[in-house]
Amino acid sequence: MPILPAPVTNLSTALERLPGIGPKTASRLTFFLLRSPDDVSRQLAEALLALKSSTAFCKVCFNITSSSQEVCDVCANPKRANGTICVVEEPLDVIAIESTAAFSGRYHVLHGVLSPIEGIGPEHLRIRELLERLRTEPVTEIILATNPSMEGDATALFLKQQLAPLGIRMTRLARGLPAGGDLEYADQSTLLRALAGRQDM
Amino acid sequence: MPILPAPVTNLSTALERLPGIGPKTASRLTFFLLRSPDDVSRQLAEALLALKSSTAFCKVCFNITSSSQEVCDVCANPKRANGTICVVEEPLDVIAIESTAAFSGRYHVLHGVLSPIEGIGPEHLRIRELLERLRTEPVTEIILATNPSMEGDATALFLKQQLAPLGIRMTRLARGLPAGGDLEYADQSTLLRALAGRQDM
Repeated sequence: MPILPAPVTNLSTALERLPGIGPKTASRLTFFLLRSPDDVSRQLAEALLALKSSTAFCKVCFNITSSSQEVCDVCANPKRANGTICVVEEPLDVIAIESTAAFSGRYHVLHGVLSPIEGIGPEHLRIRELLERLRTEPVTEIILATNPSMEGDATALFLKQQLAPLGIRMTRLARGLPAGGDLEYADQSTLLRALAGRQDM
Repeated sequence: MPILPAPVTNLSTALERLPGIGPKTASRLTFFLLRSPDDVSRQLAEALLALKSSTAFCKVCFNITSSSQEVCDVCANPKRANGTICVVEEPLDVIAIESTAAFSGRYHVLHGVLSPIEGIGPEHLRIRELLERLRTEPVTEIILATNPSMEGDATALFLKQQLAPLGIRMTRLARGLPAGGDLEYADQSTLLRALAGRQDM
């Protein structure tokens, strides 16, 4: 005999589909919502429904944008068309780079990285769209800003090979010791990169 | 200039209100939902909306029940009216005890524990309702099954004092070493309880 009514188990099951949420966390969240005022779960539900219906991908760079506009704020700004495109994995990377206020070009969001183990090939990323874009947009530099991970490096290398025939300058973000880091605790690979990339001062 | 459209930040904010979910986890979940098919967020939203509208608390024991029934399955079952009431903190505790199939009485869910630090007094728990219930229901034993924590013990003690005038037998779950536990790793307090409660064999 089931002790819990269906709505409770349904919500637990739905929450368990989210990454990093197991059965214990799901039921803890469910019971938290049961105890809290109606507002909390209603606002969450409304935000969930609005997420897909009122967001879209920018037709140019595939960053997230409001569904009322075809093109994101960055792509719509003519000042940002300075011939530099920064290729990133995810929309969150755009936010990270924008927060530095040090980049004044445009972006291109791949929506993932190449990962043969997970069956993610070039056709699953926005690579074709990038190539098409380079045909029409005057570009002088492409910054391959995928993550400094194995998959990110592999994706950058793949893009470099694909884009080489176009003869555009391609760069990768500098690798080395992070600000505030400690030499003693730096891993071997980071230290190797930091040594290899040492600069005159 | 905000880079993310409002629906994205709205969902992040709503998720951050849940316990154990910080800003980083909230945006990770939001971007996961953005990438996944519409179904995932729609089903989650529907489950959230159904949670409050189709669940209710049992009028007798305050366990969670479907809103179509006034009284939960346990309270509705005349075989469970055997004169024993098990007082627990949360509905999840009912499930835990039911899973042992060793208890055949009824429950009473307090919906919390006394916690002066968090400002939770007796008036915030279902204690008044328990007292009312004992006036009409023939009860011979009350098992005070609050958690073996400081707050749980304090709540059990408070209930014992409140219910003492009724002259009903009151018990508390046994304390000692957990099954599969290791004496070497048992904490002092558990070991003290295990020694004090040792039984003839």
